[in-house]
Amino acid sequence: MTERPGRVVCDITVSADGYSAGLHQTEERPFGEDGGDGWGDKLHAWFTETPEENRAVIDRMAAARAFVMGRNMFGPVRGAWDRQWNGWWGDNPPYHAPVFVLTHHAREPQPMEGGTTYYFVTDGIESALAQARAAAGDGDVAIQGGATTVNQYLAAGLIDELRLHIAPLTLGAGTRVFEGVPPLSLEQVESRSAKLVTHVTYRVLS
Amino acid sequence: MTERPGRVVCDITVSADGYSAGLHQTEERPFGEDGGDGWGDKLHAWFTETPEENRAVIDRMAAARAFVMGRNMFGPVRGAWDRQWNGWWGDNPPYHAPVFVLTHHAREPQPMEGGTTYYFVTDGIESALAQARAAAGDGDVAIQGGATTVNQYLAAGLIDELRLHIAPLTLGAGTRVFEGVPPLSLEQVESRSAKLVTHVTYRVLS
Ligand SMILES: NC(=O)c1ccc[n+]([C@@H]2O[C@H](COP(=O)([O-])OP(=O)(O)OC[C@H]3O[C@@H](n4cnc5c(N)ncnc54)[C@H](OP(=O)(O)O)[C@@H]3O)[C@@H](O)[C@H]2O)c1
Ligand SMILES: NC(=O)c1ccc[n+]([C@@H]2O[C@H](COP(=O)([O-])OP(=O)(O)OC[C@H]3O[C@@H](n4cnc5c(N)ncnc54)[C@H](OP(=O)(O)O)[C@@H]3O)[C@@H](O)[C@H]2O)c1
Repeated sequence: MTERPGRVVCDITVSADGYSAGLHQTEERPFGEDGGDGWGDKLHAWFTETPEENRAVIDRMAAARAFVMGRNMFGPVRGAWDRQWNGWWGDNPPYHAPVFVLTHHAREPQPMEGGTTYYFVTDGIESALAQARAAAGDGDVAIQGGATTVNQYLAAGLIDELRLHIAPLTLGAGTRVFEGVPPLSLEQVESRSAKLVTHVTYRVLS
Repeated sequence: MTERPGRVVCDITVSADGYSAGLHQTEERPFGEDGGDGWGDKLHAWFTETPEENRAVIDRMAAARAFVMGRNMFGPVRGAWDRQWNGWWGDNPPYHAPVFVLTHHAREPQPMEGGTTYYFVTDGIESALAQARAAAGDGDVAIQGGATTVNQYLAAGLIDELRLHIAPLTLGAGTRVFEGVPPLSLEQVESRSAKLVTHVTYRVLS
Protein backbone atom coordinates (compact mmCIF):
# COMPACT_ATOMS: atom_id res chain seq x y z
CA MET A 1 0.00 0.00 0.00
CA THR A 2 1.21 3.48 -0.75
CA GLU A 3 1.60 6.06 1.99
CA ARG A 4 -0.85 8.56 0.60
CA PRO A 5 -2.93 10.26 3.28
CA GLY A 6 -6.30 9.17 1.93
CA ARG A 7 -7.62 5.72 2.62
CA VAL A 8 -9.57 3.11 0.70
CA VAL A 9 -12.91 2.73 2.44
CA CYS A 10 -15.96 0.64 1.76
CA ASP A 11 -19.50 1.14 3.05
CA ILE A 12 -21.92 -1.68 2.35
CA THR A 13 -25.34 -2.54 3.71
CA VAL A 14 -25.83 -6.22 4.45
CA SER A 15 -28.56 -8.42 5.83
CA ALA A 16 -27.87 -10.24 9.11
CA ASP A 17 -26.78 -13.20 6.97
CA GLY A 18 -24.35 -11.11 4.95
CA TYR A 19 -26.12 -10.50 1.64
CA SER A 20 -26.00 -7.12 -0.05
CA ALA A 21 -28.41 -7.96 -2.87
CA GLY A 22 -30.71 -10.72 -4.05
CA LEU A 23 -30.42 -12.68 -7.25
CA HIS A 24 -31.57 -11.68 -10.76
CA GLN A 25 -31.32 -7.93 -10.74
CA THR A 26 -33.37 -6.10 -13.39
CA GLU A 27 -34.16 -2.48 -14.14
CA GLU A 28 -37.41 -2.82 -12.19
CA ARG A 29 -35.70 -4.52 -9.24
CA PRO A 30 -32.28 -2.91 -8.70
CA PHE A 31 -31.64 -5.10 -5.64
CA GLY A 32 -32.71 -8.32 -7.35
CA GLU A 33 -35.44 -10.73 -6.37
CA ASP A 34 -37.16 -9.92 -3.17
CA GLY A 35 -39.84 -12.60 -3.23
CA GLY A 36 -42.43 -9.87 -3.63
CA ASP A 37 -42.14 -8.86 0.01
CA GLY A 38 -40.01 -5.82 -0.53
CA TRP A 39 -36.89 -6.70 1.42
CA GLY A 40 -34.91 -4.60 -1.07
CA ASP A 41 -36.56 -1.66 0.62
CA LYS A 42 -36.09 -3.12 4.08
CA LEU A 43 -32.37 -3.53 3.56
CA HIS A 44 -31.98 0.19 3.01
CA ALA A 45 -34.77 1.40 5.31
CA TRP A 46 -32.18 2.82 7.71
CA PHE A 47 -31.03 5.08 4.88
CA THR A 48 -34.38 6.04 3.37
CA GLU A 49 -36.64 6.10 6.46
CA THR A 50 -34.33 7.27 9.23
CA PRO A 51 -31.73 9.48 7.51
CA GLU A 52 -31.56 12.03 10.33
CA GLU A 53 -30.68 9.44 12.94
CA ASN A 54 -27.94 8.19 10.61
CA ARG A 55 -26.78 11.54 9.30
CA ALA A 56 -23.13 11.24 10.35
CA VAL A 57 -22.80 7.83 8.73
CA ILE A 58 -24.49 8.98 5.53
CA ASP A 59 -22.38 12.13 5.29
CA ARG A 60 -19.24 10.09 5.76
CA MET A 61 -20.30 7.81 2.89
CA ALA A 62 -20.50 10.78 0.55
CA ALA A 63 -17.17 12.27 1.61
CA ALA A 64 -14.89 10.19 -0.63
CA ARG A 65 -13.28 12.02 -3.53
CA ALA A 66 -13.41 9.15 -5.99
CA PHE A 67 -15.56 6.02 -6.24
CA VAL A 68 -15.18 2.54 -7.70
CA MET A 69 -18.18 0.37 -8.45
CA GLY A 70 -19.10 -2.80 -10.35
CA ARG A 71 -21.14 -2.61 -13.49
CA ASN A 72 -24.13 -4.30 -11.85
CA MET A 73 -24.28 -1.62 -9.21
CA PHE A 74 -24.07 0.93 -12.03
CA GLY A 75 -27.03 -0.57 -13.82
CA PRO A 76 -28.94 -3.50 -15.27
CA VAL A 77 -27.25 -3.60 -18.70
CA ARG A 78 -25.43 -6.89 -19.35
CA GLY A 79 -23.19 -7.81 -22.30
CA ALA A 80 -22.65 -5.14 -24.97
CA TRP A 81 -23.78 -1.57 -24.19
CA ASP A 82 -27.00 -1.68 -26.22
CA ARG A 83 -28.28 1.61 -24.80
CA GLN A 84 -27.02 4.77 -23.16
CA TRP A 85 -27.52 3.75 -19.52
CA ASN A 86 -26.15 6.47 -17.25
CA GLY A 87 -26.64 4.99 -13.80
CA TRP A 88 -29.58 4.80 -11.42
CA TRP A 89 -29.03 8.26 -10.02
CA GLY A 90 -30.35 10.70 -12.65
CA ASP A 91 -28.61 13.62 -14.34
CA ASN A 92 -26.97 14.94 -11.18
CA PRO A 93 -25.70 11.86 -9.32
CA PRO A 94 -24.83 12.09 -5.61
CA TYR A 95 -21.12 11.37 -6.20
CA HIS A 96 -19.91 14.80 -7.39
CA ALA A 97 -16.59 13.13 -8.19
CA PRO A 98 -15.14 10.61 -10.65
CA VAL A 99 -16.74 7.16 -10.54
CA PHE A 100 -14.77 4.26 -11.98
CA VAL A 101 -17.03 1.47 -13.20
CA LEU A 102 -15.47 -1.98 -13.53
CA THR A 103 -16.61 -3.73 -16.71
CA HIS A 104 -15.51 -6.00 -19.51
CA HIS A 105 -17.23 -3.71 -22.03
CA ALA A 106 -15.31 -0.60 -23.02
CA ARG A 107 -17.14 2.70 -23.25
CA GLU A 108 -16.25 6.39 -23.48
CA PRO A 109 -16.27 8.44 -20.26
CA GLN A 110 -19.69 9.86 -19.45
CA PRO A 111 -19.72 13.30 -17.81
CA MET A 112 -22.80 14.14 -15.74
CA GLU A 113 -23.97 17.26 -13.92
CA GLY A 114 -22.58 18.27 -10.58
CA GLY A 115 -19.04 16.98 -11.00
CA THR A 116 -19.71 13.27 -11.50
CA THR A 117 -18.01 11.58 -14.45
CA TYR A 118 -18.39 7.86 -15.09
CA TYR A 119 -15.22 6.19 -16.35
CA PHE A 120 -15.39 2.63 -17.59
CA VAL A 121 -12.37 0.53 -16.63
CA THR A 122 -11.71 -2.72 -18.49
CA ASP A 123 -8.25 -3.57 -17.18
CA GLY A 124 -9.05 -4.73 -13.69
CA ILE A 125 -9.38 -3.72 -10.07
CA GLU A 126 -5.82 -2.47 -9.55
CA SER A 127 -6.07 -0.16 -12.52
CA ALA A 128 -9.43 1.19 -11.34
CA LEU A 129 -8.04 1.82 -7.87
CA ALA A 130 -4.89 3.51 -9.19
CA GLN A 131 -7.02 5.85 -11.31
CA ALA A 132 -9.33 6.55 -8.39
CA ARG A 133 -6.39 7.28 -6.08
CA ALA A 134 -4.92 9.69 -8.58
CA ALA A 135 -8.28 11.44 -8.87
CA ALA A 136 -8.87 11.54 -5.10
CA GLY A 137 -5.59 13.24 -4.26
CA ASP A 138 -5.39 13.37 -0.47
CA GLY A 139 -9.00 12.24 -0.12
CA ASP A 140 -10.50 8.83 0.42
CA VAL A 141 -11.43 6.40 -2.32
CA ALA A 142 -14.70 4.55 -1.73
CA ILE A 143 -15.26 1.05 -3.04
CA GLN A 144 -18.96 1.41 -3.61
CA GLY A 145 -20.17 -2.15 -4.28
CA GLY A 146 -21.72 -4.51 -5.11
CA ALA A 147 -20.37 -7.48 -3.24
CA THR A 148 -18.63 -8.95 -6.31
CA THR A 149 -16.51 -5.83 -6.50
CA VAL A 150 -15.98 -5.46 -2.75
CA ASN A 151 -14.89 -9.09 -2.44
CA GLN A 152 -12.24 -8.69 -5.12
CA TYR A 153 -10.75 -5.71 -3.29
CA LEU A 154 -10.93 -7.49 0.07
CA ALA A 155 -9.23 -10.58 -1.34
CA ALA A 156 -6.46 -8.40 -2.78
CA GLY A 157 -5.90 -6.70 0.59
CA LEU A 158 -6.73 -3.29 -0.88
CA ILE A 159 -9.42 -2.05 1.53
CA ASP A 160 -8.26 -0.17 4.62
CA GLU A 161 -11.60 0.31 6.34
CA LEU A 162 -14.76 -1.74 5.91
CA ARG A 163 -18.02 -0.30 7.23
CA LEU A 164 -20.85 -2.80 7.46
CA HIS A 165 -24.37 -1.54 7.93
CA ILE A 166 -26.25 -4.58 9.21
CA ALA A 167 -29.99 -4.52 8.58
CA PRO A 168 -32.54 -6.55 10.56
CA LEU A 169 -33.55 -9.26 8.11
CA THR A 170 -32.05 -12.28 6.41
CA LEU A 171 -32.20 -13.00 2.67
CA GLY A 172 -31.02 -16.59 2.40
CA ALA A 173 -29.68 -16.07 -1.15
CA GLY A 174 -28.02 -13.44 -3.30
CA THR A 175 -24.57 -11.90 -3.51
CA ARG A 176 -22.74 -12.03 -0.22
CA VAL A 177 -19.93 -9.96 1.18
CA PHE A 178 -16.80 -12.02 2.11
CA GLU A 179 -17.82 -14.86 -0.27
CA GLY A 180 -14.59 -16.43 -1.54
CA VAL A 181 -12.44 -14.01 0.46
CA PRO A 182 -9.65 -15.67 2.50
CA PRO A 183 -9.91 -15.25 6.31
CA LEU A 184 -9.33 -11.68 7.47
CA SER A 185 -8.08 -10.31 10.72
CA LEU A 186 -10.09 -7.21 11.59
CA GLU A 187 -9.96 -4.53 14.22
CA GLN A 188 -13.30 -3.20 15.33
CA VAL A 189 -12.80 0.55 15.24
CA GLU A 190 -16.32 1.66 15.95
CA SER A 191 -19.74 0.17 16.34
CA ARG A 192 -22.95 2.06 16.79
CA SER A 193 -26.60 1.31 16.89
CA ALA A 194 -29.59 3.01 15.32
CA LYS A 195 -33.21 1.95 15.16
CA LEU A 196 -33.08 0.03 11.87
CA VAL A 197 -29.40 -0.84 11.60
CA THR A 198 -26.15 -1.62 13.40
CA HIS A 199 -23.11 0.15 11.98
CA VAL A 200 -19.78 -1.64 12.47
CA THR A 201 -16.48 -0.23 11.23
CA TYR A 202 -13.51 -2.54 10.82
CA ARG A 203 -9.91 -1.75 10.04
CA VAL A 204 -8.65 -4.57 7.83
CA LEU A 205 -5.40 -5.80 9.37
CA SER A 206 -4.53 -8.60 6.93
CA MET B 1 -46.14 -20.79 20.03
CA THR B 2 -47.46 -21.28 23.55
CA GLU B 3 -48.19 -18.36 25.82
CA ARG B 4 -45.86 -19.32 28.60
CA PRO B 5 -44.02 -16.35 30.11
CA GLY B 6 -40.52 -17.62 29.38
CA ARG B 7 -39.02 -17.19 25.95
CA VAL B 8 -36.77 -19.23 23.70
CA VAL B 9 -33.52 -17.31 23.34
CA CYS B 10 -30.29 -18.01 21.51
CA ASP B 11 -26.89 -16.44 22.10
CA ILE B 12 -24.23 -17.26 19.54
CA THR B 13 -20.85 -15.77 18.74
CA VAL B 14 -20.15 -15.38 15.05
CA SER B 15 -17.37 -14.05 12.88
CA ALA B 16 -18.14 -11.04 10.68
CA ASP B 17 -18.88 -13.55 7.91
CA GLY B 18 -21.32 -15.49 10.06
CA TYR B 19 -19.39 -18.59 11.13
CA SER B 20 -19.65 -19.94 14.65
CA ALA B 21 -17.02 -22.66 14.28
CA GLY B 22 -14.45 -23.95 11.82
CA LEU B 23 -14.42 -27.37 10.19
CA HIS B 24 -13.13 -30.65 11.65
CA GLN B 25 -13.63 -30.25 15.38
CA THR B 26 -11.55 -32.54 17.60
CA GLU B 27 -10.98 -32.85 21.32
CA GLU B 28 -7.85 -30.71 20.99
CA ARG B 29 -9.65 -28.12 18.86
CA PRO B 30 -13.17 -27.63 20.17
CA PHE B 31 -13.84 -24.89 17.62
CA GLY B 32 -12.45 -26.85 14.70
CA GLU B 33 -9.64 -25.95 12.36
CA ASP B 34 -8.16 -22.56 12.90
CA GLY B 35 -5.29 -22.77 10.45
CA GLY B 36 -2.89 -22.70 13.38
CA ASP B 37 -3.45 -19.00 13.95
CA GLY B 38 -5.77 -19.34 16.89
CA TRP B 39 -8.93 -17.70 15.57
CA GLY B 40 -10.89 -20.08 17.82
CA ASP B 41 -9.55 -17.98 20.67
CA LYS B 42 -10.12 -14.72 18.81
CA LEU B 43 -13.78 -15.54 18.20
CA HIS B 44 -14.38 -15.72 21.95
CA ALA B 45 -11.84 -13.12 23.07
CA TRP B 46 -14.67 -10.74 24.05
CA PHE B 47 -15.80 -13.39 26.53
CA THR B 48 -12.44 -14.57 27.86
CA GLU B 49 -10.38 -11.34 27.73
CA THR B 50 -12.94 -8.63 28.46
CA PRO B 51 -15.58 -10.29 30.66
CA GLU B 52 -16.10 -7.24 32.88
CA GLU B 53 -16.96 -4.99 29.96
CA ASN B 54 -19.45 -7.61 28.80
CA ARG B 55 -20.77 -8.64 32.21
CA ALA B 56 -24.45 -7.89 31.57
CA VAL B 57 -24.44 -9.88 28.34
CA ILE B 58 -22.63 -12.81 29.93
CA ASP B 59 -24.93 -12.87 32.95
CA ARG B 60 -27.95 -12.84 30.67
CA MET B 61 -26.54 -15.85 28.78
CA ALA B 62 -26.41 -17.84 32.02
CA ALA B 63 -29.90 -16.85 33.16
CA ALA B 64 -31.88 -19.45 31.20
CA ARG B 65 -33.45 -22.25 33.24
CA ALA B 66 -32.97 -24.99 30.66
CA PHE B 67 -30.59 -25.41 27.71
CA VAL B 68 -30.64 -27.24 24.40
CA MET B 69 -27.45 -28.01 22.50
CA GLY B 70 -26.21 -30.15 19.65
CA ARG B 71 -24.00 -33.10 20.28
CA ASN B 72 -21.00 -31.45 18.62
CA MET B 73 -21.21 -28.55 21.01
CA PHE B 74 -21.41 -31.09 23.83
CA GLY B 75 -18.22 -32.81 22.74
CA PRO B 76 -16.04 -34.44 20.09
CA VAL B 77 -17.51 -37.97 20.25
CA ARG B 78 -19.06 -39.08 16.96
CA GLY B 79 -21.02 -42.26 16.21
CA ALA B 80 -21.61 -44.67 19.12
CA TRP B 81 -20.79 -43.43 22.65
CA ASP B 82 -17.46 -45.25 22.96
CA ARG B 83 -16.49 -43.42 26.16
CA GLN B 84 -18.07 -41.55 29.03
CA TRP B 85 -17.72 -38.01 27.65
CA ASN B 86 -19.41 -35.56 30.02
CA GLY B 87 -19.03 -32.24 28.21
CA TRP B 88 -16.21 -29.69 27.95
CA TRP B 89 -17.10 -27.99 31.20
CA GLY B 90 -15.80 -30.25 34.02
CA ASP B 91 -17.63 -31.76 36.97
CA ASN B 92 -19.56 -28.60 37.82
CA PRO B 93 -20.71 -27.15 34.50
CA PRO B 94 -21.84 -23.51 34.26
CA TYR B 95 -25.43 -24.42 33.37
CA HIS B 96 -26.82 -25.33 36.84
CA ALA B 97 -29.94 -26.53 35.05
CA PRO B 98 -31.07 -29.32 32.73
CA VAL B 99 -29.23 -29.47 29.41
CA PHE B 100 -30.91 -31.34 26.54
CA VAL B 101 -28.38 -32.69 24.05
CA LEU B 102 -29.68 -33.47 20.56
CA THR B 103 -28.22 -36.72 19.23
CA HIS B 104 -28.98 -39.81 17.21
CA HIS B 105 -27.27 -41.96 19.87
CA ALA B 106 -29.36 -42.77 22.95
CA ARG B 107 -27.76 -42.52 26.36
CA GLU B 108 -28.90 -42.42 30.00
CA PRO B 109 -29.21 -39.00 31.68
CA GLN B 110 -25.95 -37.82 33.23
CA PRO B 111 -26.26 -35.84 36.47
CA MET B 112 -23.37 -33.49 37.28
CA GLU B 113 -22.53 -31.28 40.24
CA GLY B 114 -24.19 -27.94 40.79
CA GLY B 115 -27.59 -28.76 39.35
CA THR B 116 -26.65 -29.58 35.75
CA THR B 117 -28.04 -32.81 34.29
CA TYR B 118 -27.36 -33.80 30.69
CA TYR B 119 -30.33 -35.44 28.97
CA PHE B 120 -29.85 -37.03 25.57
CA VAL B 121 -32.74 -36.50 23.19
CA THR B 122 -33.07 -38.71 20.13
CA ASP B 123 -36.53 -37.76 18.91
CA GLY B 124 -35.85 -34.35 17.44
CA ILE B 125 -35.81 -30.63 18.08
CA GLU B 126 -39.49 -30.23 19.03
CA SER B 127 -39.21 -32.93 21.67
CA ALA B 128 -36.03 -31.40 23.10
CA LEU B 129 -37.69 -27.98 23.26
CA ALA B 130 -40.86 -29.33 24.88
CA GLN B 131 -38.78 -31.04 27.56
CA ALA B 132 -36.69 -27.91 28.09
CA ARG B 133 -39.82 -25.74 28.36
CA ALA B 134 -41.30 -28.07 30.94
CA ALA B 135 -38.06 -27.96 32.92
CA ALA B 136 -37.70 -24.16 32.65
CA GLY B 137 -41.14 -23.37 34.06
CA ASP B 138 -41.58 -19.62 33.75
CA GLY B 139 -37.91 -19.14 32.83
CA ASP B 140 -36.23 -18.85 29.46
CA VAL B 141 -34.96 -21.76 27.41
CA ALA B 142 -31.61 -21.15 25.71
CA ILE B 143 -30.75 -22.77 22.40
CA GLN B 144 -27.04 -23.02 23.06
CA GLY B 145 -25.55 -24.01 19.69
CA GLY B 146 -23.80 -24.99 17.53
CA ALA B 147 -25.03 -23.51 14.29
CA THR B 148 -26.47 -26.82 13.06
CA THR B 149 -28.79 -26.84 16.04
CA VAL B 150 -29.58 -23.11 15.97
CA ASN B 151 -30.44 -23.27 12.28
CA GLN B 152 -32.94 -26.07 12.79
CA TYR B 153 -34.73 -24.04 15.45
CA LEU B 154 -34.63 -20.87 13.34
CA ALA B 155 -36.02 -22.72 10.32
CA ALA B 156 -38.85 -24.11 12.46
CA GLY B 157 -39.73 -20.63 13.75
CA LEU B 158 -39.05 -21.67 17.34
CA ILE B 159 -36.61 -18.97 18.48
CA ASP B 160 -38.09 -15.77 19.93
CA GLU B 161 -34.90 -13.80 20.44
CA LEU B 162 -31.58 -14.21 18.65
CA ARG B 163 -28.51 -12.53 20.11
CA LEU B 164 -25.54 -12.37 17.79
CA HIS B 165 -22.14 -11.54 19.22
CA ILE B 166 -20.15 -10.45 16.18
CA ALA B 167 -16.38 -10.83 16.53
CA PRO B 168 -13.82 -8.89 14.45
CA LEU B 169 -12.48 -11.54 12.11
CA THR B 170 -13.67 -13.64 9.19
CA LEU B 171 -13.21 -17.41 8.89
CA GLY B 172 -14.16 -18.15 5.29
CA ALA B 173 -15.30 -21.71 6.12
CA GLY B 174 -16.99 -23.69 8.86
CA THR B 175 -20.52 -23.97 10.21
CA ARG B 176 -22.54 -20.84 9.60
CA VAL B 177 -25.57 -19.41 11.33
CA PHE B 178 -28.59 -18.93 8.98
CA GLU B 179 -27.26 -21.51 6.48
CA GLY B 180 -30.28 -23.17 4.88
CA VAL B 181 -32.70 -21.07 6.91
CA PRO B 182 -35.48 -19.40 4.88
CA PRO B 183 -35.51 -15.56 4.90
CA LEU B 184 -36.39 -14.09 8.29
CA SER B 185 -37.93 -10.81 9.22
CA LEU B 186 -36.20 -9.48 12.31
CA GLU B 187 -36.69 -6.59 14.67
CA GLN B 188 -33.52 -5.11 16.09
CA VAL B 189 -34.27 -4.86 19.79
CA GLU B 190 -30.87 -3.80 21.02
CA SER B 191 -27.39 -3.32 19.71
CA ARG B 192 -24.35 -2.46 21.76
CA SER B 193 -20.68 -2.19 21.21
CA ALA B 194 -17.73 -3.39 23.26
CA LYS B 195 -14.04 -3.40 22.45
CA LEU B 196 -13.83 -6.85 20.89
CA VAL B 197 -17.42 -7.47 19.84
CA THR B 198 -20.71 -6.00 18.67
CA HIS B 199 -23.78 -7.43 20.38
CA VAL B 200 -27.00 -7.35 18.35
CA THR B 201 -30.29 -8.67 19.68
CA TYR B 202 -33.09 -9.51 17.25
CA ARG B 203 -36.68 -10.47 17.89
CA VAL B 204 -37.59 -13.03 15.24
CA LEU B 205 -40.83 -11.84 13.65
CA SER B 206 -41.34 -14.61 11.10
N1 LIG C 1 -26.34 -3.40 -0.11
C1 LIG C 1 -25.55 -2.45 -0.61
O1 LIG C 1 -25.06 -1.57 0.10
C2 LIG C 1 -25.26 -2.46 -2.08
C3 LIG C 1 -24.19 -1.70 -2.56
C4 LIG C 1 -23.92 -1.77 -3.92
C5 LIG C 1 -24.68 -2.53 -4.76
N2 LIG C 1 -25.72 -3.26 -4.26
C6 LIG C 1 -26.49 -4.15 -5.13
O2 LIG C 1 -25.61 -5.21 -5.49
C7 LIG C 1 -25.96 -5.69 -6.80
C8 LIG C 1 -24.72 -5.64 -7.68
O3 LIG C 1 -23.69 -6.32 -7.05
P1 LIG C 1 -22.95 -7.53 -7.74
O4 LIG C 1 -22.09 -8.14 -6.70
O5 LIG C 1 -23.99 -8.37 -8.43
O6 LIG C 1 -22.10 -6.86 -8.90
P2 LIG C 1 -21.11 -5.61 -9.04
O7 LIG C 1 -19.89 -5.84 -8.20
O8 LIG C 1 -21.82 -4.34 -8.88
O9 LIG C 1 -20.77 -5.76 -10.60
C9 LIG C 1 -20.23 -6.96 -11.10
C10 LIG C 1 -19.93 -6.75 -12.58
O10 LIG C 1 -18.95 -5.71 -12.71
C11 LIG C 1 -18.03 -6.09 -13.72
N3 LIG C 1 -16.75 -6.39 -13.07
C12 LIG C 1 -16.53 -6.66 -11.76
N4 LIG C 1 -15.22 -6.90 -11.54
C13 LIG C 1 -14.60 -6.77 -12.74
C14 LIG C 1 -13.25 -6.88 -13.13
N5 LIG C 1 -12.27 -7.20 -12.24
N6 LIG C 1 -12.95 -6.70 -14.44
C15 LIG C 1 -13.94 -6.38 -15.33
N7 LIG C 1 -15.25 -6.25 -14.99
C16 LIG C 1 -15.58 -6.45 -13.72
C17 LIG C 1 -18.61 -7.32 -14.40
O11 LIG C 1 -19.57 -6.84 -15.37
P3 LIG C 1 -19.46 -7.09 -16.97
O12 LIG C 1 -18.74 -8.39 -17.18
O13 LIG C 1 -20.93 -7.14 -17.38
O14 LIG C 1 -18.77 -5.91 -17.52
C18 LIG C 1 -19.35 -7.95 -13.23
O15 LIG C 1 -20.38 -8.83 -13.65
C19 LIG C 1 -27.06 -4.78 -7.32
O16 LIG C 1 -28.31 -5.46 -7.08
C20 LIG C 1 -26.90 -3.56 -6.46
O17 LIG C 1 -28.12 -2.85 -6.36
C21 LIG C 1 -26.01 -3.24 -2.93
N1 LIG D 1 -19.53 -19.61 18.44
C1 LIG D 1 -20.35 -20.07 19.38
O1 LIG D 1 -20.97 -19.29 20.15
C2 LIG D 1 -20.57 -21.54 19.50
C3 LIG D 1 -21.63 -22.02 20.25
C4 LIG D 1 -21.83 -23.37 20.29
C5 LIG D 1 -20.96 -24.24 19.65
N2 LIG D 1 -19.93 -23.76 18.96
C6 LIG D 1 -19.04 -24.66 18.21
O2 LIG D 1 -19.81 -25.18 17.14
C7 LIG D 1 -19.37 -26.49 16.83
C8 LIG D 1 -20.56 -27.44 16.91
O3 LIG D 1 -21.58 -26.97 16.09
P1 LIG D 1 -22.18 -27.81 14.92
O4 LIG D 1 -23.04 -26.91 14.14
O5 LIG D 1 -21.06 -28.54 14.24
O6 LIG D 1 -23.00 -28.98 15.65
P2 LIG D 1 -24.08 -29.02 16.83
O7 LIG D 1 -25.32 -28.32 16.45
O8 LIG D 1 -23.46 -28.68 18.14
O9 LIG D 1 -24.29 -30.60 16.83
C9 LIG D 1 -24.74 -31.26 15.67
C10 LIG D 1 -24.94 -32.73 16.02
O10 LIG D 1 -25.99 -32.83 16.99
C11 LIG D 1 -26.81 -33.93 16.67
N3 LIG D 1 -28.10 -33.41 16.22
C12 LIG D 1 -28.38 -32.14 15.80
N4 LIG D 1 -29.68 -32.03 15.47
C13 LIG D 1 -30.25 -33.27 15.67
C14 LIG D 1 -31.55 -33.77 15.50
N5 LIG D 1 -32.54 -32.97 15.05
N6 LIG D 1 -31.78 -35.07 15.82
C15 LIG D 1 -30.77 -35.84 16.30
N7 LIG D 1 -29.50 -35.43 16.47
C16 LIG D 1 -29.25 -34.14 16.15
C17 LIG D 1 -26.11 -34.70 15.58
O11 LIG D 1 -25.14 -35.52 16.21
P3 LIG D 1 -25.11 -37.16 16.12
O12 LIG D 1 -25.73 -37.55 14.82
O13 LIG D 1 -23.63 -37.45 16.22
O14 LIG D 1 -25.85 -37.65 17.32
C18 LIG D 1 -25.40 -33.57 14.87
O15 LIG D 1 -24.29 -34.00 14.10
C19 LIG D 1 -18.31 -26.83 17.84
O16 LIG D 1 -17.03 -26.59 17.24
C20 LIG D 1 -18.59 -25.87 18.97
O17 LIG D 1 -17.43 -25.62 19.74
C21 LIG D 1 -19.72 -22.41 18.85
